[in-house]
Amino acid sequence: MKQLWQNCHAATMVGGRYSIIEDAAILTEGRLIQWIGRRAELPAHEVQRRHDLGGAWVTPGLIDCHTHLVFGGDRSAEFEQRLQGVSYAEIAAAGGGIASTVRATREASEDDLLASAIKRARPLLADGVTVLEVKSGYGLDLASERKMLRVARRLGEVLPVTVCATCLSAHALPAEYAGRADAYIELICTEILPALAAEGLVDAVDAFCEHLAFSPAQVERVFQAAQRLGLPVKLHAEQLSSLHGSSLAARYQALSADHLEFMTEEDAIAMAAAGTVAVLLPGAFFVLRETQLPPIEALRKHGVAMALASDLNPGTSPALSLRLMLNMGCTAFRLTPEEALAGVTLNAAKALGLGHTHGSLEAGKVADFVAWDIQRPAELAYWLGGDLPKRIIRHAEEVSCG
Amino acid sequence: MKQLWQNCHAATMVGGRYSIIEDAAILTEGRLIQWIGRRAELPAHEVQRRHDLGGAWVTPGLIDCHTHLVFGGDRSAEFEQRLQGVSYAEIAAAGGGIASTVRATREASEDDLLASAIKRARPLLADGVTVLEVKSGYGLDLASERKMLRVARRLGEVLPVTVCATCLSAHALPAEYAGRADAYIELICTEILPALAAEGLVDAVDAFCEHLAFSPAQVERVFQAAQRLGLPVKLHAEQLSSLHGSSLAARYQALSADHLEFMTEEDAIAMAAAGTVAVLLPGAFFVLRETQLPPIEALRKHGVAMALASDLNPGTSPALSLRLMLNMGCTAFRLTPEEALAGVTLNAAKALGLGHTHGSLEAGKVADFVAWDIQRPAELAYWLGGDLPKRIIRHAEEVSCG
Ligand SMILES: [Zn+2]
Ligand SMILES: [Zn+2]
Repeated sequence: MKQLWQNCHAATMVGGRYSIIEDAAILTEGRLIQWIGRRAELPAHEVQRRHDLGGAWVTPGLIDCHTHLVFGGDRSAEFEQRLQGVSYAEIAAAGGGIASTVRATREASEDDLLASAIKRARPLLADGVTVLEVKSGYGLDLASERKMLRVARRLGEVLPVTVCATCLSAHALPAEYAGRADAYIELICTEILPALAAEGLVDAVDAFCEHLAFSPAQVERVFQAAQRLGLPVKLHAEQLSSLHGSSLAARYQALSADHLEFMTEEDAIAMAAAGTVAVLLPGAFFVLRETQLPPIEALRKHGVAMALASDLNPGTSPALSLRLMLNMGCTAFRLTPEEALAGVTLNAAKALGLGHTHGSLEAGKVADFVAWDIQRPAELAYWLGGDLPKRIIRHAEEVSCG
Repeated sequence: MKQLWQNCHAATMVGGRYSIIEDAAILTEGRLIQWIGRRAELPAHEVQRRHDLGGAWVTPGLIDCHTHLVFGGDRSAEFEQRLQGVSYAEIAAAGGGIASTVRATREASEDDLLASAIKRARPLLADGVTVLEVKSGYGLDLASERKMLRVARRLGEVLPVTVCATCLSAHALPAEYAGRADAYIELICTEILPALAAEGLVDAVDAFCEHLAFSPAQVERVFQAAQRLGLPVKLHAEQLSSLHGSSLAARYQALSADHLEFMTEEDAIAMAAAGTVAVLLPGAFFVLRETQLPPIEALRKHGVAMALASDLNPGTSPALSLRLMLNMGCTAFRLTPEEALAGVTLNAAKALGLGHTHGSLEAGKVADFVAWDIQRPAELAYWLGGDLPKRIIRHAEEVSCG
């Protein structure tokens, strides 16, 4: 079906800039953009449907390129205990923290995991998200990691959102491998990853490189296993200390390195050369009350593409809004609103290997866009929380996530 | 009409604690709560309607006790300029900052002000807010302050929300009084306040006590004028420095002193004795990247009631969600989720002089409540941004703000 969408302005985000078209028109054919430009220059066309966007500002659909939104259990009681003065050590000794999420995820049925994931995905979608990444990493054994990734796939079938599934088995060391991290890495490389990849459940492979998680040498083994399977890699790096995981990621042409508060300028140079996207996560920064800012100036200077994501997870970022991350990216990290918007559109698409099909409004790309009732694009980052009136169009069809 | 609401748990917030009733039932008559308690103890009753709340957690309707949500113009362009590196001084020299909001507010028609205020109020209401305070303070002359307060009153007529109108003419010095602050205070005390009070537009009187605004002596003149008119007072105090405005407010039995980052323990003692509520504003703290935390321990120690509010305003807190302030109050200020919830219910009601009719679920109070689809009350503070599924009941009627 051919459709015309008009009476709007567009921040197309082509080239990672606003790339504004005033008084724009968009022709779609099937689920793709066929033509976008100034309405005055609209080519001759025949369309089945015409849509009046009422003077709205159109942006690409938002892309949340880093989430852990599939998990079992609930950590709000632990959140409350911490604020009542119970220490991390006491909570961990009582079986809390990530261990409790692993336990609850292993125990949950696939259907229960799906139901709770849907509940968390809905507010993200209502906020304008049309592409979502979901990581495994709370299962930490083959069956449970498979269950998480199957839920990720099913999420994309039952909700109007494109889901990218990332295998993050190297997220934490499961209790049954205590003191045997290398053996667990071996399990990932020889059993978990090959099996899940063969089942078509893995779009990318991720790991957590940190003193309290896995060493660069262990991460490298995971990357090599991914490489053998032809899968792209990503990395949680430099969140709490500098291990140069982001340079390691760049050596493996990673799609992205994520967090990055403690990265160095040398890491930025390596990432720029490899085309690795820097995914910044202001929600976790805020929740953990961090003070070390990611080196935005170095990333700008060396031309590293920057993305922003919710990092939605039960411990360090229970964030249900990606647009809130635009505000936090600007307020806390001093991104410009234009950089922030590129960070949840074109650069987020690149961080998922979808840069050629998603993330900007141009002919040939998928027709995922949001028509916002705002005066200028900067408003998307300006408002702190709350909902902005909008219409969400995915695959050239209006969706509602009421 | 008599109604029964059941199949729910209630965090009644009686006494400023959760004061939980499991498996609760609520009888309402007209717009009031007639009885609330355990369903097993429900007295004999005849009701016209029964409502099944589906196992939800019921809390009092949320109360946003400090907003500046009526204003003309738009500061998102300025937000963007600042992040592009333009200095405050350059923006002020170009007529930006609060001066631009005053200009735009003076120029706007009452209907335009109302339309834009409705747009900002809707997300707050959708978040569960049933009582809202609105301040004047961008008019700074009699006609424009009247216009703002009339819009506040009309907001309460066109939306399902109770609006408290606060006269904040002593917010900033209007350009035409430059260098003549005492003369402007005189205008407020002898003309603006008496006129607006006579028109029934003023529920409380507020001022901004700070080096860049008004001195304690000037504030005291405003308080005395309010006292002569029989109006309660509030104060913006100790946000950027310590002038002991909160102690001054306590001497005038103020309903609240607001911001308070730089208050002292002596101020807390004075506020406790006067029953003055401490209204904490984490949105402004976040946006301004402040590091000086309000003295929560001193407030706790001396038993000062703490409230949380959005401070919704175009410059320092463009916050469209009160529930986000619960999270920020916990994360940034280290309130417990219980204190945070009391801060947007019972203590917020007290900060508006509505402690006897609103803010907790008990017989005789107004039947404003929210039924949340959550597992425990702490979730209200736990999630960062986004929308939680809920049903909003105001005056014993279900409302929808879609
Ligand atoms: Zn993560
Ligand atoms: Zn204020």
